[in-house]
Amino acid sequence: MSEPVIVLVDPAEPGNVGTAARAMKNFGFTRLLLVDPPPLDPSGEAYGFAGRAREDILPAAQATTLEDVASQYFTVGFTATTHADGRRHVRYPFLTPETLATELAAMDAQAALVFGREHTGLSNEELASLDRVCSIPATEAYPTLNLGQAVTVALYALQGLTDAPTQQVDPTHDRADEEAIDRFYEQMARYLVAINHPIEKRDKTMRLVRRVIGRAHPTEREIATLTGIVRRGAEFAQPPVDGRGD
Amino acid sequence: MSEPVIVLVDPAEPGNVGTAARAMKNFGFTRLLLVDPPPLDPSGEAYGFAGRAREDILPAAQATTLEDVASQYFTVGFTATTHADGRRHVRYPFLTPETLATELAAMDAQAALVFGREHTGLSNEELASLDRVCSIPATEAYPTLNLGQAVTVALYALQGLTDAPTQQVDPTHDRADEEAIDRFYEQMARYLVAINHPIEKRDKTMRLVRRVIGRAHPTEREIATLTGIVRRGAEFAQPPVDGRGD
Repeated sequence: MSEPVIVLVDPAEPGNVGTAARAMKNFGFTRLLLVDPPPLDPSGEAYGFAGRAREDILPAAQATTLEDVASQYFTVGFTATTHADGRRHVRYPFLTPETLATELAAMDAQAALVFGREHTGLSNEELASLDRVCSIPATEAYPTLNLGQAVTVALYALQGLTDAPTQQVDPTHDRADEEAIDRFYEQMARYLVAINHPIEKRDKTMRLVRRVIGRAHPTEREIATLTGIVRRGAEFAQPPVDGRGD
Repeated sequence: MSEPVIVLVDPAEPGNVGTAARAMKNFGFTRLLLVDPPPLDPSGEAYGFAGRAREDILPAAQATTLEDVASQYFTVGFTATTHADGRRHVRYPFLTPETLATELAAMDAQAALVFGREHTGLSNEELASLDRVCSIPATEAYPTLNLGQAVTVALYALQGLTDAPTQQVDPTHDRADEEAIDRFYEQMARYLVAINHPIEKRDKTMRLVRRVIGRAHPTEREIATLTGIVRRGAEFAQPPVDGRGD
């Protein structure tokens, strides 16, 4: 599918528009539509909060109406209130951002993500004009997110829908190669001999060391350091003064 | 594990402290520690941005040092920069918030989630004093989140680590029961007869209708409405004036 557009309905605080624009820039969204926005002064809070989105997304934001959005896009409204009475006409199966991501990824339509005003959100009438409703999981005690924060969480969860390359966050890319780790194990085995670790316990101790190192995913630098200090320990090892040794 | 504490290191903007406190309240975290915070005036932006966290989390925030945090907790630093030179001493396998959530859920330690200052984040020296490093996936072009937004995304992803009950977001809780949906299919089948839909196509059409309705997860109200209008269609059906009919 093509990248969803972001729609803010009647936002009161320019700062929230700026925060939303910055989240868009962070997570690869580019098209911002505004329904009844406040004035966005280039020297005011909208631009102040927008980070580098002040260069493109915010100045390119377009005014629109919710009616136009509803007629042109597959619309998803965001709301904090999921406890609506099940027998009322305006009620929905609620999506989480993650289930929404899966649903939109499988669709061929252009989607619009619609966020409501700060204090009252989207009205029931507005929600009724949209195709889907998404609610961000939060505590029962205080599920109402600030507008800028709600947009941020939603776009974080939906960033896979954009074409923007995501910065690699690879938990394993710094891991030392197996050869370096094996050198550490060799030195550790020599060390156990040098400190006269009981013969019958050596295999078990080595298995324990392997489990610990395996879980730690050491970096090249870390395993080299550990190998070095274990090697030195083996070199420095002397039988204790009481002469116990093998 | 017990609920992680949240640590902000040298935040410059009171508004970001307030936004972080609000995110804590939204996602069920309660303990906020501050290293070198700005003055937090009860009539200023910290309290203005904190939502209902102004009642408890923000006034209860405690001052501390990063050294104390590092000695008392299993510490996780957050950073936007994952492209550090792999041969430098300060580098790490980076976790995503989701892999961090899995790791912390399996641990018995008290964790501290540590966020750096607005413009420069955590220094390499500070990161080196922590146990783990987490980076929030974002675009290559602009991976630097605002401090308040970074805390919000992190706590959203880690909310499962708290004991706070999460507001139910159940995509299926409003779905009509199967009996009601079956009544709709019965009426639809009668309707196809009434409108003289070609006999050889009826089974295929019914399968199509079932697929569409199955994907739509209609509510009780929705399926009752659809059943009603299909039933009326069948009742109103008359052979067309040209007399074609079965």
